[in-house]
Amino acid sequence: MIDYTATFTDQYEIVMAQVYFLKGRTGEQAVFDYFFRKNPFDGGYAILAGLDDLLNILEKLRFDEKDISFLQRQNLNPDFINYLKNFKFNGTVYSVCEGDVVFPALPILSIEAGLIEAQLIETIVLNILNFETLIATKASRMKQVAGGRKLVDFGLRRAQGPGGYYASRAAVIGGFDATSNVRAGRDFDIPISGTMAHSFVQSYDDELTAFRDFAQCRADDCILLVDTYDTLNSGIPNAIKAGKEMQMQDKRLKGIRLDSGDLAYLAKRGRKMLDEAGLSYVKIAASNQLDEHVIKSLMEQDAPIDIFGVGTSVMTGAPDAALDGVYKLAFAGGKGRIKFSETVAKITLPYRKQIFRLRDNDDNFWGADAIALSEETNVEKMFHPFEPLKSLHIEGINKEPLLKKVMQNGKRITEPQKLANISQYSQMRLNKLPEEYKRFKNPHIYKIGISERLRDERDKLIKKYKI
Amino acid sequence: MIDYTATFTDQYEIVMAQVYFLKGRTGEQAVFDYFFRKNPFDGGYAILAGLDDLLNILEKLRFDEKDISFLQRQNLNPDFINYLKNFKFNGTVYSVCEGDVVFPALPILSIEAGLIEAQLIETIVLNILNFETLIATKASRMKQVAGGRKLVDFGLRRAQGPGGYYASRAAVIGGFDATSNVRAGRDFDIPISGTMAHSFVQSYDDELTAFRDFAQCRADDCILLVDTYDTLNSGIPNAIKAGKEMQMQDKRLKGIRLDSGDLAYLAKRGRKMLDEAGLSYVKIAASNQLDEHVIKSLMEQDAPIDIFGVGTSVMTGAPDAALDGVYKLAFAGGKGRIKFSETVAKITLPYRKQIFRLRDNDDNFWGADAIALSEETNVEKMFHPFEPLKSLHIEGINKEPLLKKVMQNGKRITEPQKLANISQYSQMRLNKLPEEYKRFKNPHIYKIGISERLRDERDKLIKKYKI
Repeated sequence: MIDYTATFTDQYEIVMAQVYFLKGRTGEQAVFDYFFRKNPFDGGYAILAGLDDLLNILEKLRFDEKDISFLQRQNLNPDFINYLKNFKFNGTVYSVCEGDVVFPALPILSIEAGLIEAQLIETIVLNILNFETLIATKASRMKQVAGGRKLVDFGLRRAQGPGGYYASRAAVIGGFDATSNVRAGRDFDIPISGTMAHSFVQSYDDELTAFRDFAQCRADDCILLVDTYDTLNSGIPNAIKAGKEMQMQDKRLKGIRLDSGDLAYLAKRGRKMLDEAGLSYVKIAASNQLDEHVIKSLMEQDAPIDIFGVGTSVMTGAPDAALDGVYKLAFAGGKGRIKFSETVAKITLPYRKQIFRLRDNDDNFWGADAIALSEETNVEKMFHPFEPLKSLHIEGINKEPLLKKVMQNGKRITEPQKLANISQYSQMRLNKLPEEYKRFKNPHIYKIGISERLRDERDKLIKKYKI
Repeated sequence: MIDYTATFTDQYEIVMAQVYFLKGRTGEQAVFDYFFRKNPFDGGYAILAGLDDLLNILEKLRFDEKDISFLQRQNLNPDFINYLKNFKFNGTVYSVCEGDVVFPALPILSIEAGLIEAQLIETIVLNILNFETLIATKASRMKQVAGGRKLVDFGLRRAQGPGGYYASRAAVIGGFDATSNVRAGRDFDIPISGTMAHSFVQSYDDELTAFRDFAQCRADDCILLVDTYDTLNSGIPNAIKAGKEMQMQDKRLKGIRLDSGDLAYLAKRGRKMLDEAGLSYVKIAASNQLDEHVIKSLMEQDAPIDIFGVGTSVMTGAPDAALDGVYKLAFAGGKGRIKFSETVAKITLPYRKQIFRLRDNDDNFWGADAIALSEETNVEKMFHPFEPLKSLHIEGINKEPLLKKVMQNGKRITEPQKLANISQYSQMRLNKLPEEYKRFKNPHIYKIGISERLRDERDKLIKKYKI
């Protein structure tokens, strides 16, 4: 959908690239890691999303004619502009699988490429992964509490502009069943879902005629919005009339939608009214400012809601605005590199790495991941990154390497997955994570450790840079 | 940038449109109003943004071949699909000027079109205006407190996917001076700005060499990031060395950037160090989790910061995720229409309307807008929408009509404005709004009243729909 060209970047990437170019560092190999520092929503995990979109964009990323003509007016070196004309991303990408459960500090995605190429794509890597991961995680929290009820994203109108396009995709990875967003449905093969707006009912002189017209033209998928005038005294009684008329023609009213008032109270009253009218097959959909906390509360009150229509919260990740993912240099000029910081926890890890996820005998997640240098094939002991006294013996425990090569020389080397498959994979992985990490309140903290060799290499660099 | 086709919509728009089509209501004229119910950020106003983007999209909006082929698989009526093949928006749009100061309940934008056309564009109207208005308003709050200091958006990496493209534009309307977002710079003619990342410094064996290389290749616009290792003991001293070397070559270091630690403390210490080194012309840029509250606090502490680099907050509007703008039917089938609600304040206003902004003798905003029927040319008394005892005599007060026709028969009839002009207009308008409406804490409430005729027409409809 989006016409991504290589100017979808921050100006400083171009400025730095020019310095590298002029200093003859074009061919120098670098490794950058993408990771985040804090789980969103004060939760205990995140769901990686956006990888497929990112790889598609990286494969085709170029500066187009408009880009070049704009950059020519920016006081850049002409030889460098020529370099940009021929720019493409030729690097290698290692990544955790899209949909997997991830945690702070893990190098989820690693870029190995020429210094300039790796630098120029920083912004787009961060933009896509930060956003889709935020949304998939938010969606998965709703999925956790919605039980088997259907979750539908209704939020395009409250999305942050075209961000809604990718939000609808990420919501499916997190566990949503359908979207109102027709364009996302078209491009990502998501089931689309739509009922009616208040304006539809308002455009008629009376509610019942509106319902009848709708039922007649949309008999196979008829959900009637019942709160335009008065939910209990007008909307539901009229929906019941329309539903019975459909019955007489051997058709079935699919549902009613509540969009205001106390959803638990109205759903219970509505369910009773529908059942007493012999319309027990009619489902109840509810929308209006839903998020994981409201859905949890509605479920705890046994509200007989079959379909949750979620807007702003799943489109934007509110109350979180962004995942704090960063892209840090780990290797350049033949040497391991770290970002030093007075805040010890912000010191980064050098060199290309591998992540080992520990699995218990039932194949569930054991509660810890170990980060090692990429050439290490086994880790027997993992160390707390910054507390020397804390370590854990992990020999003999099942270890699953998470980082896989997904792009080589700028070309995808793994098949793109269907969105439904990514979503299924995500559910499967999340099922392996023990419940205590999924709690909304003070979730258990998943442990991240580093191998002895990685720790030693990092500490050598810390000594070097410490003032 | 964004390939907007008519499937950038909610499925229910298409479902409703099909009912209208099958019931022969295609040609029926309708009026829809766009308005929001609550100022964002608990503030006292909002800045309208997104109009130009919206009009550009509406002019070209079509269902393309992929859209049609997708819709053909959605169990829709073949005649209706044929109608969609030829769909274009032929309506008339009335709007407040982009950049103007607006308030809750005002019908900021009015669409007069065939019922189907007006319905099908609902989602895109809401998506664009809700988002850009949110961001322009956020940016204008920072502008309020930043005094003459420069505001630059650095946030593309934390934006909600491609939403960042429009956020950079809206930020300029609200008062930002530049962006790091190269693509937005290219397409919206925004000055672009870029310094360096930590990775640049890390890619060198020592900080000073990094600074020297950068200064050499970027002498005309050299801002050095000083917190990679240790701001006061390494970063600033090395920047001073590099700056003095530049001086010796008759060049000038433009600035240093602080990106962590206590920005007020470091800016004061840094200023002193720079001044003592004879580099008083070197500016200080600061970034790291800035928003209007942090900037206000830094200004109150007299932090000598010349350039604020703002990320997440201006790209996403955090802590608000979305403006709650809605699109409500006001006229259809030759009749005025309202949305009734048990919450009285949610009852909408029927018919096409005009907004009159009251101006005092100095041409400043008087603190109230009156909404009237579109054919009313003067309003002598305005009524509180729902409190019958509250009214205000406003004869003789200067009244500026705010709604102007900007599109007719689907074609723009006003010249697109340059972004810089919209921004200037916005500043000029905001200057007319008294300070008490701009306070962050408990701002004064701007009054919105309705004319007697509008009140009477609405009340007739309330009587009709009240159960």
